[in-house]
Amino acid sequence: MTTRKSFGSDNQAGAHEAVLRMMTLVNEGGAVAYGGDPWTERAGAGLQALTGARGGVFLVFTGTAANVLGLSLLLQPHEGVICPESAHLNVDECGAPERILGSKLLAVPAPDGKLTPALIASRLGDRGDVHRVQPRVVAISQVTEYGTCYTLAELRALGEFCRSEGLRLYADGARLANAAAWLGCSLADLAAPMDVLSFGATKNGAVGAEAVVVMAEDLMDRAAFQRKQQMQLGSKMRYLAAQFLGLLEDQLWLRNAAHANLMARRLADGLRGVPGVELWQKVESNAVFASLHPAHIDRLQRDGDFYVWDERAHVVRWMTAFDTTEDDADAFAALVRETAAIGG
Amino acid sequence: MTTRKSFGSDNQAGAHEAVLRMMTLVNEGGAVAYGGDPWTERAGAGLQALTGARGGVFLVFTGTAANVLGLSLLLQPHEGVICPESAHLNVDECGAPERILGSKLLAVPAPDGKLTPALIASRLGDRGDVHRVQPRVVAISQVTEYGTCYTLAELRALGEFCRSEGLRLYADGARLANAAAWLGCSLADLAAPMDVLSFGATKNGAVGAEAVVVMAEDLMDRAAFQRKQQMQLGSKMRYLAAQFLGLLEDQLWLRNAAHANLMARRLADGLRGVPGVELWQKVESNAVFASLHPAHIDRLQRDGDFYVWDERAHVVRWMTAFDTTEDDADAFAALVRETAAIGG
Amino acid sequence: MTTRKSFGSDNQAGAHEAVLRMMTLVNEGGAVAYGGDPWTERAGAGLQALTGARGGVFLVFTGTAANVLGLSLLLQPHEGVICPESAHLNVDECGAPERILGSKLLAVPAPDGKLTPALIASRLGDRGDVHRVQPRVVAISQVTEYGTCYTLAELRALGEFCRSEGLRLYADGARLANAAAWLGCSLADLAAPMDVLSFGATKNGAVGAEAVVVMAEDLMDRAAFQRKQQMQLGSKMRYLAAQFLGLLEDQLWLRNAAHANLMARRLADGLRGVPGVELWQKVESNAVFASLHPAHIDRLQRDGDFYVWDERAHVVRWMTAFDTTEDDADAFAALVRETAAIGG
Amino acid sequence: MTTRKSFGSDNQAGAHEAVLRMMTLVNEGGAVAYGGDPWTERAGAGLQALTGARGGVFLVFTGTAANVLGLSLLLQPHEGVICPESAHLNVDECGAPERILGSKLLAVPAPDGKLTPALIASRLGDRGDVHRVQPRVVAISQVTEYGTCYTLAELRALGEFCRSEGLRLYADGARLANAAAWLGCSLADLAAPMDVLSFGATKNGAVGAEAVVVMAEDLMDRAAFQRKQQMQLGSKMRYLAAQFLGLLEDQLWLRNAAHANLMARRLADGLRGVPGVELWQKVESNAVFASLHPAHIDRLQRDGDFYVWDERAHVVRWMTAFDTTEDDADAFAALVRETAAIGG
Repeated sequence: MTTRKSFGSDNQAGAHEAVLRMMTLVNEGGAVAYGGDPWTERAGAGLQALTGARGGVFLVFTGTAANVLGLSLLLQPHEGVICPESAHLNVDECGAPERILGSKLLAVPAPDGKLTPALIASRLGDRGDVHRVQPRVVAISQVTEYGTCYTLAELRALGEFCRSEGLRLYADGARLANAAAWLGCSLADLAAPMDVLSFGATKNGAVGAEAVVVMAEDLMDRAAFQRKQQMQLGSKMRYLAAQFLGLLEDQLWLRNAAHANLMARRLADGLRGVPGVELWQKVESNAVFASLHPAHIDRLQRDGDFYVWDERAHVVRWMTAFDTTEDDADAFAALVRETAAIGG
Repeated sequence: MTTRKSFGSDNQAGAHEAVLRMMTLVNEGGAVAYGGDPWTERAGAGLQALTGARGGVFLVFTGTAANVLGLSLLLQPHEGVICPESAHLNVDECGAPERILGSKLLAVPAPDGKLTPALIASRLGDRGDVHRVQPRVVAISQVTEYGTCYTLAELRALGEFCRSEGLRLYADGARLANAAAWLGCSLADLAAPMDVLSFGATKNGAVGAEAVVVMAEDLMDRAAFQRKQQMQLGSKMRYLAAQFLGLLEDQLWLRNAAHANLMARRLADGLRGVPGVELWQKVESNAVFASLHPAHIDRLQRDGDFYVWDERAHVVRWMTAFDTTEDDADAFAALVRETAAIGG
Repeated sequence: MTTRKSFGSDNQAGAHEAVLRMMTLVNEGGAVAYGGDPWTERAGAGLQALTGARGGVFLVFTGTAANVLGLSLLLQPHEGVICPESAHLNVDECGAPERILGSKLLAVPAPDGKLTPALIASRLGDRGDVHRVQPRVVAISQVTEYGTCYTLAELRALGEFCRSEGLRLYADGARLANAAAWLGCSLADLAAPMDVLSFGATKNGAVGAEAVVVMAEDLMDRAAFQRKQQMQLGSKMRYLAAQFLGLLEDQLWLRNAAHANLMARRLADGLRGVPGVELWQKVESNAVFASLHPAHIDRLQRDGDFYVWDERAHVVRWMTAFDTTEDDADAFAALVRETAAIGG
Repeated sequence: MTTRKSFGSDNQAGAHEAVLRMMTLVNEGGAVAYGGDPWTERAGAGLQALTGARGGVFLVFTGTAANVLGLSLLLQPHEGVICPESAHLNVDECGAPERILGSKLLAVPAPDGKLTPALIASRLGDRGDVHRVQPRVVAISQVTEYGTCYTLAELRALGEFCRSEGLRLYADGARLANAAAWLGCSLADLAAPMDVLSFGATKNGAVGAEAVVVMAEDLMDRAAFQRKQQMQLGSKMRYLAAQFLGLLEDQLWLRNAAHANLMARRLADGLRGVPGVELWQKVESNAVFASLHPAHIDRLQRDGDFYVWDERAHVVRWMTAFDTTEDDADAFAALVRETAAIGG
């Protein structure tokens, strides 16, 4: 009997074969270390073209590192980061922002994981008070940790609000590709209102690679040093670059993301009408959040591994990936349906 | 015309094909993320067996990260690290130890890059003085940044001295394999006197992977959290593990290192008797340090890229790697000889 | 016309004359610096006797510094601090805990500023998850920022809960004297359940001096070094010590606090029945929190300076101090009454 | 028998009575906290007038804190501080700069404790290398830790060099008054070439107060927040201000320093011709460094407390203060003479 595909996380998927192939392709003899090689230059140029970044692109190893490096370019010691309570950087990075940046996160409850100008404004009351951390950066996640997406209009509104308030805007783009696929827009559209953002490859078919995209030119010099200081400068950078080159070819990044989104949609559709199963968030990317009867959660966990997002509300998270098949989605939907039929 | 092989650094080499092959092998379907996969377990077990570590093995992405994570397990905020002035962590990590650890490095001049009990003792005078950082960790590099190796007797002496003085011993093992090859000893022999050490794969044929080897059991729990906080927890850990699995197979790590050492020896031998060229350090690994006439350095730099280690003393560093061929070494020795013949 | 006494904060009061007198008394010739003088020894012994601290007492300059030093003795880098959202260290220290400790604060909403075992338990769900900061210290304020006090039974319950859960308990005692006065207990009673606490003098008649009281013996050595590293080791320590000596004499610390508490009680009593004025928190120390009609707040602010604690709920904070007189309290109550009579 | 006056340190002296008197004078009723009082304004204005600072003056509690705050205004995370090896901030602050700033100190051996453009230039080779901390601030001490002073010409040369190299210049002025007294110049002369400097009061007759003097206007806002974050914002600021007001009156700061200098000169003169006693540094302030026979050092230590600066070279440091009398100096010189006469 084969193991059922896990819907635990998109980082449980392997790497896309095109990514591994490109890593093998760049493995030809010597190359200048630390990013002075032609592949890194090509990946950087490609990412700059896609995002419209004037400041440059800095490859790092993990999403946590991308967030920390990105934020570090925008903060002075007494300044803080307004983010949703659910933000990965607030919840899932073992305190890296506080430890590495020394900065306070000013977390705002946001039911769908999305900040609004009004929510941001609610944290601006302390400006000028020397006893209070000064809000300086607004950090959003696009896709959010709840699988929802900011629309382009929402992004623009955030960008305008931040500019008018003297705030900087950062986006955690660990799943930026899924947002682009959902919104049917370019990465440049998503990047335009930002000062800095990350563009994740790991969850989208890479082995392990993220890009910090610096929109403004004047932050570039600093970024190169801080990447090194933050222990994210790979000596054999070409293998990080190769992962992006693999994903850039024929827009594989977009195809992977679109497919994952489609599978989440398919799973969500398959759950429609299942008694006791209710979607908890809109399905706008590759995540399905649903509330279930606790006994059903227990039974489903026996066969697979996924997050119980909220114990009290009996909410679980199911994620699809570039390699989820229609059969995987249908089989899992069927399993949930069967489980629900057994009764609580 | 073909490009000459560079002797700039062992991290300019590509990856060994066995490493890439293993990365492709582990790319089979889903796997638990963050190291809960069978390959990470196997790599960890293999490394523990090789080194005798009771505390565990923690894979990270870069040598700087390995040093910082390793040291972070051993330090309280008011404690410092005694290291040679030439230590990578003192010179080449863009201040990551100070930034990430907040700890002071107590650097000691050491002409051959090696600490001794007497040199360490010279920094112990401030103990108990509340105005002074308290020395707590001794950090050595094995192989040193000058290509020299501590003998097993020297390591034992350091270990005993540190224990008797209540100090902890850390080894930066970015080139530990080369030391094992040179000394003809096991990794366990090298690791035994240490509290924590790193074991580098990147410079020895990997794509980018280092292991933090924790000898003592009681530091293990902390290490898992601090790796995450230090932004070094890869989600798709299996690809880091695969690199080590590739190197562990048939002792590829040792064969790679032994070959690199041999090529350095061959290069050094090829330079013997060249007028104006003098070895500056003993050749005990894969590095050749030599002093040359400045004009010769300039001329050689035109064709290749290597470090001028000491401008004033006209000392250069040439490094070999697992993929350096006998022809490479001979051709470069010949080039140096020719250059020297032209005159200053 | 004389200026009306401000009810803005107890740190707007001057110093008690006994404190200044003692500072002049110790000003006799030379003394060993950095705390090696007899007055520091005497103050330390006195404070240890009062609190039952076995670990020692460390004088510092500010309340923020006391909190940061105290917490720094109890935390490893990946560990966090559970505290009420209203905690001074979360709100009013310009991010010093995050900057200096690098630690995340796990803030819990607490309507009266007081933590309970149940509230603490709500933040313990992430233990063992490597992506999450590990809760390690529970930080309470006694008196709280809302002027409320933990009873001895509540403190004991917190202490037992923390011990049973492997957590450390810290108390911000910037107004510890007021709590002792309110509860009619000794400082030792208040300190007993704690691992570390602060004992504030500044708001209680000193010029500027706080004590970090270390209950456990094994944290003492570390504390001496960390105080220096945290820039809180005064060279002429005798003048910090003198402030405490002045307050220790004839229990001036207790008399000052009891008087301030009494004046708050008197002010609160004077407000009883004033239309539109409602107490927002119990008056258990030297703070009176009340909600008022916004227009009345504006009018009262014209003559004096106090905090509008909550704009939306129209809540203000009035604080008394050791030097508030009965006439001051009565005059201010009368002023509020008159203002209220004018209408909104 | 009375205790002999100690020549251990100028911070073993008490406070000047004018300082304590002023602290009592400001103790009149309430005052706005955190520096919003008239005395703080007056002290700030006075210090700005004396130094020519356009950016403002920020009072703090200790010399270590002044250095850390001052440097923090000038550094980005990847930047470092060039300083002499003997610098207080490198040696005597228990690693506070590394811990609080996270910055690396790039220490340069300087036999008389003084940096020169050539010495600074020796640390500029790594600029632009992403693996290296980027030198950004040059930190000097005026008076140096060896009691020597930079001349105005030397200061100007440093200032010009720093400007031409894009470096910022900071001065640790814990004994700035002594330098002004020695050089016969104004504080403004000393401050002019600096970006930020400290002006110490503690060692010159205060209870405990230092000023961070920010020469440039654009750093002011940041400084207010960072002082708070660095735990140096006193609530009852008037008592810090009072100390400076006491010292500013009738140039007490200058008279105190000039007297201390004179006493050092007198002591040094009294040692002339004593066999075996040799001055180790020029006496340009209130410090006398001398080499002695080790046996004589031991004998002198019996009666008093002073630093053995260099064990190997048998060098001791004797310091005078504002309250050292001619008799004190003569008596100690006589004691040294007697001791030397006994033989080794």
